[in-house]
Amino acid sequence: MRHVRLGDSYLVRLDTDEEVVGAITRFAAEEKIDAGSLTGIGAVRDIVLGYFDRSAREYLRQTLTGEWEILSLSGNLALKDGRPFAHLHVTLGGREFQTLGGHLFEARVGATVELVVRPLPGYQLRTLDDATGLYLLDL
Amino acid sequence: MRHVRLGDSYLVRLDTDEEVVGAITRFAAEEKIDAGSLTGIGAVRDIVLGYFDRSAREYLRQTLTGEWEILSLSGNLALKDGRPFAHLHVTLGGREFQTLGGHLFEARVGATVELVVRPLPGYQLRTLDDATGLYLLDL
Amino acid sequence: MRHVRLGDSYLVRLDTDEEVVGAITRFAAEEKIDAGSLTGIGAVRDIVLGYFDRSAREYLRQTLTGEWEILSLSGNLALKDGRPFAHLHVTLGGREFQTLGGHLFEARVGATVELVVRPLPGYQLRTLDDATGLYLLDL
Repeated sequence: MRHVRLGDSYLVRLDTDEEVVGAITRFAAEEKIDAGSLTGIGAVRDIVLGYFDRSAREYLRQTLTGEWEILSLSGNLALKDGRPFAHLHVTLGGREFQTLGGHLFEARVGATVELVVRPLPGYQLRTLDDATGLYLLDL
Repeated sequence: MRHVRLGDSYLVRLDTDEEVVGAITRFAAEEKIDAGSLTGIGAVRDIVLGYFDRSAREYLRQTLTGEWEILSLSGNLALKDGRPFAHLHVTLGGREFQTLGGHLFEARVGATVELVVRPLPGYQLRTLDDATGLYLLDL
Repeated sequence: MRHVRLGDSYLVRLDTDEEVVGAITRFAAEEKIDAGSLTGIGAVRDIVLGYFDRSAREYLRQTLTGEWEILSLSGNLALKDGRPFAHLHVTLGGREFQTLGGHLFEARVGATVELVVRPLPGYQLRTLDDATGLYLLDL
């Protein structure tokens, strides 16, 4: 991962084979980003997507094979149990330009992933919400 | 709906069962946001999507059943007839990680919807454009 | 194309029949935007999408017929060979609310395309990366 700060935001480039969600989380920890928003494009493989089943109170998970373009990666950064947590959703585009997507659990960088990370001043916590079983923004 | 202002932006969390487009519009009115941009992720149900048919000069509408992840919600805020108006497009992901999307007319919050709203200083109007039959940004 | 500057960002409206990627590139050149981020929604036709085949080190290209809603357009602006270059990915929604997407090579505006462009202070270069054959952010 490489990054540069331009004004209030970071341009970030992830390197081939890096795991995306872990890299974003480590970046937020190193830069002490306790709240923020994030968008990105690029290409990934070894992808694990999630769909939250509300009645079962758990995520269904799906692993994808092949390399996919990230058509959109978007989400936010907040603190969960005192550490940065990235809540990310992704739309993916395949070789036939077909699309799939969901909650992003993990993915490995293909040719490149390019992010714009915008820290927000202050901090934001996530806490466990009994009604859903999810760690929601504790606003 | 709950929100916190962090610097120039708001983090917003919509509550289960709230209608998304109405909640965003009311939020913009209460916070006097006369121009802005918005992104979001989360999950929704009772969704009404639109596709604008240019020759018919009207939106085709489709109601979706089931609960869908919001893979991306993006758009802008401006004033239409003196009141805040949110122009929003959405990509949705289903239980099989399949995707659908369109102009977002309405949707009800599932487990959560998380938004980053960035007001822009000043204001922006939408006015009726005769060529298309749409209220376009009056730049 | 019309635009207004509101604080640190531009609201941009492209006109029917304008080519999107060329218009964004010219806008960045005229406004001297040497780094930035961009999001957009709207509708387009005459679309050329790309999928980067890493082993072949080239983009597969696909032309789409019909008019499609832009569900999300996102990416960044940087300098390539001394001139602004927009790296853009897009998710598209069709008349049946089906979706497709990829790297955006070109598209012509349908009813409207609305962008929020946020320049970042300073500049960012893209240089040829031997490992991938792509012009990557030179961070």
